[in-house]
Amino acid sequence: MTVQLLNYAFDRWTPGEGKLAELQSAIDGAPVATTGSGGIDFGEMLKHARDVGGPALRKLTFHERARVLKALGQAIMARKEELYELNYLTGATRKDGWIDIEGGAGTLFSFSSKGRRELPDAHVLMDGAVEPLSKSGSFVGQHIYTPLQGAAVHINAFNFPVWGMLEKLAPTFLAGVPAIVKPASSTAYLTEAAVRIMTDSGVLPTGALQLIVGGVGDLFDHLTGQDVVSFTGSASTALKLRTHPTVMRESVRFIAEQDSLNASVLGPDAAPSTPEFDLFVREVAIEMTVKAGQKCTAIRRAMAPAAYLDAVQQALAEKLASTKVGDPRSADTRMGALVSLSQRDDVRQKIAELEAAGARIVAGNPSADSAVAGGAFLPPVLLRTDDPWSTVAVHDVEPFGPVSTIMPYRDLDDAIALANRGKGSLALSLFTHSADAARDFIGGAAAYHGRMLVIDRTNSKESTGHGSPLPVLVHGGPGRAGGGEEMGGIRGVKHYMQRTAIQSSPTMIAAITGQYVPGAPKHLIDVHPFRRTMSELEIGDTWKTESRTVSIADIEHFAEFTGDKFYAHMDEEAAKASPIFEGRVAHGYLILSFAAGLFVDPDPGPVLANTGLENLRFLIPLYPGDSMRVELSVRSKSLKSEETGVVRWAVEVFNQKDELVATYDLLTENVP
Amino acid sequence: MTVQLLNYAFDRWTPGEGKLAELQSAIDGAPVATTGSGGIDFGEMLKHARDVGGPALRKLTFHERARVLKALGQAIMARKEELYELNYLTGATRKDGWIDIEGGAGTLFSFSSKGRRELPDAHVLMDGAVEPLSKSGSFVGQHIYTPLQGAAVHINAFNFPVWGMLEKLAPTFLAGVPAIVKPASSTAYLTEAAVRIMTDSGVLPTGALQLIVGGVGDLFDHLTGQDVVSFTGSASTALKLRTHPTVMRESVRFIAEQDSLNASVLGPDAAPSTPEFDLFVREVAIEMTVKAGQKCTAIRRAMAPAAYLDAVQQALAEKLASTKVGDPRSADTRMGALVSLSQRDDVRQKIAELEAAGARIVAGNPSADSAVAGGAFLPPVLLRTDDPWSTVAVHDVEPFGPVSTIMPYRDLDDAIALANRGKGSLALSLFTHSADAARDFIGGAAAYHGRMLVIDRTNSKESTGHGSPLPVLVHGGPGRAGGGEEMGGIRGVKHYMQRTAIQSSPTMIAAITGQYVPGAPKHLIDVHPFRRTMSELEIGDTWKTESRTVSIADIEHFAEFTGDKFYAHMDEEAAKASPIFEGRVAHGYLILSFAAGLFVDPDPGPVLANTGLENLRFLIPLYPGDSMRVELSVRSKSLKSEETGVVRWAVEVFNQKDELVATYDLLTENVP
Repeated sequence: MTVQLLNYAFDRWTPGEGKLAELQSAIDGAPVATTGSGGIDFGEMLKHARDVGGPALRKLTFHERARVLKALGQAIMARKEELYELNYLTGATRKDGWIDIEGGAGTLFSFSSKGRRELPDAHVLMDGAVEPLSKSGSFVGQHIYTPLQGAAVHINAFNFPVWGMLEKLAPTFLAGVPAIVKPASSTAYLTEAAVRIMTDSGVLPTGALQLIVGGVGDLFDHLTGQDVVSFTGSASTALKLRTHPTVMRESVRFIAEQDSLNASVLGPDAAPSTPEFDLFVREVAIEMTVKAGQKCTAIRRAMAPAAYLDAVQQALAEKLASTKVGDPRSADTRMGALVSLSQRDDVRQKIAELEAAGARIVAGNPSADSAVAGGAFLPPVLLRTDDPWSTVAVHDVEPFGPVSTIMPYRDLDDAIALANRGKGSLALSLFTHSADAARDFIGGAAAYHGRMLVIDRTNSKESTGHGSPLPVLVHGGPGRAGGGEEMGGIRGVKHYMQRTAIQSSPTMIAAITGQYVPGAPKHLIDVHPFRRTMSELEIGDTWKTESRTVSIADIEHFAEFTGDKFYAHMDEEAAKASPIFEGRVAHGYLILSFAAGLFVDPDPGPVLANTGLENLRFLIPLYPGDSMRVELSVRSKSLKSEETGVVRWAVEVFNQKDELVATYDLLTENVP
Repeated sequence: MTVQLLNYAFDRWTPGEGKLAELQSAIDGAPVATTGSGGIDFGEMLKHARDVGGPALRKLTFHERARVLKALGQAIMARKEELYELNYLTGATRKDGWIDIEGGAGTLFSFSSKGRRELPDAHVLMDGAVEPLSKSGSFVGQHIYTPLQGAAVHINAFNFPVWGMLEKLAPTFLAGVPAIVKPASSTAYLTEAAVRIMTDSGVLPTGALQLIVGGVGDLFDHLTGQDVVSFTGSASTALKLRTHPTVMRESVRFIAEQDSLNASVLGPDAAPSTPEFDLFVREVAIEMTVKAGQKCTAIRRAMAPAAYLDAVQQALAEKLASTKVGDPRSADTRMGALVSLSQRDDVRQKIAELEAAGARIVAGNPSADSAVAGGAFLPPVLLRTDDPWSTVAVHDVEPFGPVSTIMPYRDLDDAIALANRGKGSLALSLFTHSADAARDFIGGAAAYHGRMLVIDRTNSKESTGHGSPLPVLVHGGPGRAGGGEEMGGIRGVKHYMQRTAIQSSPTMIAAITGQYVPGAPKHLIDVHPFRRTMSELEIGDTWKTESRTVSIADIEHFAEFTGDKFYAHMDEEAAKASPIFEGRVAHGYLILSFAAGLFVDPDPGPVLANTGLENLRFLIPLYPGDSMRVELSVRSKSLKSEETGVVRWAVEVFNQKDELVATYDLLTENVP
């Protein structure tokens, strides 16, 4: 008897009722599990996410959420072998599983790290600088991001049951939004196991994560404009979901990653025997066979200059012939099975469509016997068309398996047009050593592709590969690819937040954001802030320095000492003649140096070092005889680790008339 | 006989064929014009935009496009009186027209200015920093934005026939995308006149702008994933368009601004006789009467603490009673007419719905005779409900005219819940002098609102008002408001561009973007770059300095001179004890100052001044006895005016082992 997969709803593991679906092993068709979600109240699941999960997540700061992500990744890594065992049943090799399992955990780590480095340890994310909206500065604008107050509904594909879940959960949780995950049924047992590891870890806030192992019933009827649907799968399913009346009526955010006829292009300069030629052939073969070609980013269309197409075909056919297809548990297997027999049927059907349209098979036999009886094995199949503008199906039909079509192009413009004929894709690679070709190709094609690689002899060793979405880069594409965008570091987090323009006084904006903004009230402190640990420092704490006069002797001394004898400091006539100055002025670096002299407290203490400086603007000149003083205010704080953190200080340098001479942000490394 | 409005298609003015619609004056129902778009091939219009307009715009740099916007704004301003004359026919006063006409031109100027200050003088916009993807740095990531290669289809509302067009055209053109404008018929004569001014100006690239004064026929059937639809109007029309099969199938970007039950909230602290109470009453009255309340941002729901609601009602009723409604051409008129009799019928119908739901009229008579015979006049109508949770229609029914409903709230949480019950809005204002109330309210409600104002006695004088979308702030809102986002400065430009993640070597990325990135090749020059004008400087031009040694005497001298005696520079034991340093180190500001001494060329010349510094990071310490040298490379250039521009230099400071000690961007003001 096989195990029944459980749903995770209302923070409890719950079996589905009524009719269950049976899941089979991709290797031999043996039963693996039954699954279903009958009897669950999906409206209540959404309500649980919104009423319990959302508030729990929103109570945490960005950094606290980032630490949850890290703990989840560690929990996955600690029990990864359980997942690798199940991974084989999907037809995947251990290497394929590495992308899914450890790649998934790595995505959690990457978002955790980005979250701590690039987001404030706060609840509100500021977007861009203060926009001045008034003369005296009493009324300004500031864009902020706050978490949506609904739920994220993640509809995932079968091919990456772990990574596919985690790459969506990471930005969602970091944003402060709870999620309901609905994996594709055929590999749901692997997703369920990964969810179990995460719930066991005890780090998930109540209500933050729920799982549906079966149909979503009437869930979509209950969506609102505060919810987000993030979908990965076929264009036809996406269409059905995105046209759901509730999604349309409520303007529910809908992020789709769907079909993509990804192209790889051999550059016009990359003749046979160049390194780029070999790299191209290698990449196409890898993308056809990794995960048995069941990747939304796999290369479906391989384009080469017409003169090189025969050579490409020959080299590719050789590479593919040497690819050992078989039981993914065997050490010498290079490519495992498709996920299911029905998936294999679908791929064979699509190959037949391509043949009917005029493409011909030049390597691999789609009717070959399965490598293991009862399994969903299929050898890699290479097709070719010599007239890609007539064989239009090669740009429209996506066989989701180890299948690719090679085709010729006439010149770079033709290659661009063919690449774009895919009507929008997730990933494109160009193999060229010519910077001109790269510039022209990207310029002509970037609007159609979400991610583009230019690979040559200089970077191939360190390339992360055509088919690998990375957590720090956006994943998605326009048009046929769905128009969605995921990951890309903090960019992906914003898809689960609302951007709002706030208009008010600096005082109110500081109160709303919990971050210092210029013009907001300062809290004058009487203990030097370098003597305070990060936890003792409050946003807006301000230290006012004494003032000092800057003399002509100071300027001349500084010029002599540093060697900076720029005319504006040394030549009264030339300075006067410039459109900016009324005479000799103090060096900007002299102002910075004197400012530090005024505000630095020398003893070792919580401030370990000055590590950086940002947004420095010299606003008005400081003339000899002017004096200067500094106000140093705590702008924001963020932890780097248990031992160190970064304090961002707003530094304002004033002259004796209290006019702003310079402003900048100072970064220091501090003891927490 | 009335004039027939013309379409502007294929860069020609073209009359519609077949049946024409008749447009009437809002003031007295007199015929104004006929209009129609029969006989136009809409598929060919799209093709003209894509094949002619797109390439023409993409040939221009961001700065060149910004200058086109400025010239268009100047053309509008030079002939604004022609537009003011037509403006009256829409029922609007001159003051109302100012928002539309001069506000429209101002939006062009704002985008022009933002474009020149915040975008590079180039074709590709870089998004974020280089993402390191490899150990040795041969393979990195860089996000870029390039213009979509389709057309923008702008479907505009009747209420702002000029501004409504220009606020969409400005970011579209700046992005490099051609537009097809379809104004609402009832006020299309004013849009047509504004388009005529722009085409007469001669500054529009061929194919960049087309106009449809009538139905759009089968235009939507011809859309692709490279096109963008930007819609302003009712939720019902938006729903019809966004569910169009082609829009769905091709994942056409669809930006919607639609219904919005905007709220204004009197803070719990704002008792009668406080300044905030008076400001609230004034703002509600203004928003009800400006443009006869026909603004998507107008206040439809005015919320006050239950105890203050009677006082609010009395004060508002008084204000509204003194509002003179009449012929907008009369100098003493404060509020003109609705746009048409059918619009007035619709508003009366919605008022009846609110009454049927339980709200009651407390000021104004919706059945009052028209101020001018045959005109679409309606006095301001104030409704009230004392049970806003039962009278749900007040949160769902939007009378698009001079109508608002006042309602009580119990406490701040109740106010937040009521505000959010609008299910997503464009604008919300809160009148409070309490920073705590502001923080709690915004925290609880920001996810539901696109723009929020917090107004009090300190900022009201400079406030731009509840109902005014600003070019530098985003305009749009989630849920019922359509989920779209426009303007917001450069944010709005990106809606017409595709973001693509590029992965390659720094060399290739520099070639693709036309901008220097760290690691890309440097072109060593032998004339000092301070001796070159901006036009003579090329991206990547690099000046290598001599090197100098930094001695312990230098450090001590600098400390003495500036007063910066931080332990890390002065105390060997303490420096050694820190987790960062191995002993005393040079001051960061000493490194900056010596660097300037090394790279500055003193004579007056094309470099006028050092105006700023960004992204400074001290990477490794510089110890006494180490030497330092600088490489100064041109990173990007942009013009501020005819007389000055800004050069951004990448500065890299190396030690004697060629290790990077510090990197930063230096900004200088230069002669073009």
